Amino acid sequence: MASLDELTSRVAGASGMAQRRAIAKSITLLESTRISDRERADALLARLLPHSGRAFRIGLSGTPGVGKSTLIESLGLHLIDQGLTVAVLTIDPSSTVSGGSILGDKTRMERLSVHDKAFIRPSPSSGNLGGVAEKTREAMLVLEAAGYEVVIVETVGVGQSEIAVAGMTDLFVLMQLPNAGDELQAIKKGVMELADLVLINKADTDPDAATRACAQITSSLRLLGQHGNPLRGQHDPQAWHPRVMQLSALSGVGVAGLWEAAMEFRERRTRSGTWDSRRREQSLSWMWERIEAGLRQLFRNDEAVRARLPGLSHDVAQGRVVASSAARELLSLFRPAQQPSSGSGEAA
Amino acid sequence: MASLDELTSRVAGASGMAQRRAIAKSITLLESTRISDRERADALLARLLPHSGRAFRIGLSGTPGVGKSTLIESLGLHLIDQGLTVAVLTIDPSSTVSGGSILGDKTRMERLSVHDKAFIRPSPSSGNLGGVAEKTREAMLVLEAAGYEVVIVETVGVGQSEIAVAGMTDLFVLMQLPNAGDELQAIKKGVMELADLVLINKADTDPDAATRACAQITSSLRLLGQHGNPLRGQHDPQAWHPRVMQLSALSGVGVAGLWEAAMEFRERRTRSGTWDSRRREQSLSWMWERIEAGLRQLFRNDEAVRARLPGLSHDVAQGRVVASSAARELLSLFRPAQQPSSGSGEAA
Repeated sequence: MASLDELTSRVAGASGMAQRRAIAKSITLLESTRISDRERADALLARLLPHSGRAFRIGLSGTPGVGKSTLIESLGLHLIDQGLTVAVLTIDPSSTVSGGSILGDKTRMERLSVHDKAFIRPSPSSGNLGGVAEKTREAMLVLEAAGYEVVIVETVGVGQSEIAVAGMTDLFVLMQLPNAGDELQAIKKGVMELADLVLINKADTDPDAATRACAQITSSLRLLGQHGNPLRGQHDPQAWHPRVMQLSALSGVGVAGLWEAAMEFRERRTRSGTWDSRRREQSLSWMWERIEAGLRQLFRNDEAVRARLPGLSHDVAQGRVVASSAARELLSLFRPAQQPSSGSGEAA
Repeated sequence: MASLDELTSRVAGASGMAQRRAIAKSITLLESTRISDRERADALLARLLPHSGRAFRIGLSGTPGVGKSTLIESLGLHLIDQGLTVAVLTIDPSSTVSGGSILGDKTRMERLSVHDKAFIRPSPSSGNLGGVAEKTREAMLVLEAAGYEVVIVETVGVGQSEIAVAGMTDLFVLMQLPNAGDELQAIKKGVMELADLVLINKADTDPDAATRACAQITSSLRLLGQHGNPLRGQHDPQAWHPRVMQLSALSGVGVAGLWEAAMEFRERRTRSGTWDSRRREQSLSWMWERIEAGLRQLFRNDEAVRARLPGLSHDVAQGRVVASSAARELLSLFRPAQQPSSGSGEAA
């Protein structure tokens, strides 16, 4: 077993296959649920942290079939052409149910997946969303320490995973098809307001529909106030207003423009200072999210709580005990004595 | 000081001013933040609970100026005409900031507020939303035990208060003005999908705009899938699909139709069994929401956590410590030894 110092220096200093193996070994360690591994993982993260934080973190979301893998393939190859290195991570909530991660992804990124300037790692396949998101964030730190300059975190448009991805990236990109209704779904799920860029993909197959979708989404963003306070906007030339762009991930038309917009975004955010402040807020939110998940786990594992919870829940559901009184009683029983079990917080 | 048994029998058995005074005294006890009062309050709730649960709980939301108070006045008087008694509660998130509740409300419900078949109680004026919502739920139990047959819980369309109100009522009514954009805001905030009824108020001032708004919202509800699973809908004749209705709260036109729709809603939900199952789920959600608020409070009050939290938060924000490692360290320090302080959960 390699020492943590060796692993750190190989991730942050080696190249080629030696580095790739060290990265894979590090991420496997982070994903382990054994308590002794968790302690080593925390120690490894502490060593890697000073080398991390320099990548451009891009979140990418959209419903299945919208063309995310195709876009990652063409954007990734475009970035490599520009002399950059690219890492791809996936948060796939369905894999936490099925127990398997999307293997199809790699095969749909045919050229990128075998490129030596790219590293693709599928979603961890166990744990709830909070635990999966935590491991993905930690894997991102490893890949940053290894020098990857762009990290793309992809997720399907299901459940809360999009909020998790937006919470760990600098730029959040939402892909849409030129369909009526798509836009309302994104608004309903609260994803539209997270988007810094909205891409209408497959714009070449129906240019008229794509143009209509562009106009509709732009107008929705305006009505939702996502174009910011108009007064503030006038006074802050660095403010970023979400943009709607058309492209074709398959043909590659529009991909260069997407990257130009992304770089403009980074430049504006860096100049205005919101780049760094957003990262600080993300780190603190991450800490609190893990604290709350850990508190729930401690509570549910507490012996006295476990003894009383089923009966009291039944009484509350049957209307025999007032919910707030039941909560107060359970809280008064709660006495966590043991260390929180390590790993992914509340994962089973 | 009246004994709890006396208070209970006056709330549940007396009438006229004696009952009104007992109700007011009970709610004041529930809103108290003194620990000894909290114990008495829990004991009072336990006594009142068997008498509660029989009211029709209606939530009403909409932005300021949409006409909520006007509607409550005309709906309330209509219900009294039908031989019913009406209680009105308000959750006003702004009052928790300003420290004062909306006194204007009572004056805007001129006839209802002095009617002996109605009881109006403004929002508690301290605590965060969770605490205010808890006290409102508890006050609702008191009013139900006192025999009020319809309880209306009103809130302004700000922040999370609408979700709290929908979580404590049987029927959630959303009021809208016939404006473009109103609808998208409601979708964005996740309120549209909570609505069982959407009312376009002031329909008489611009009938064309009201008709357009009706069509637009109906189509949005369909695109959002709020009309339920079409397959399931065909097989379940009792399923309720959200309805959009026009009315004029000021002239009273449409108010009788609103009440008819509400009764149809109750009948369908009762027959299908979802009336009771929804109440059970609401009680359990309420219990868990208060547990989580209590856990956060215990955590933040823990001495070892308090000693380490500021420094560690700073290190996390500065990128010197990984957020997940910091969360694990803080959780390992956490040892709640004292009883949770009573009252409104995490209120300051």
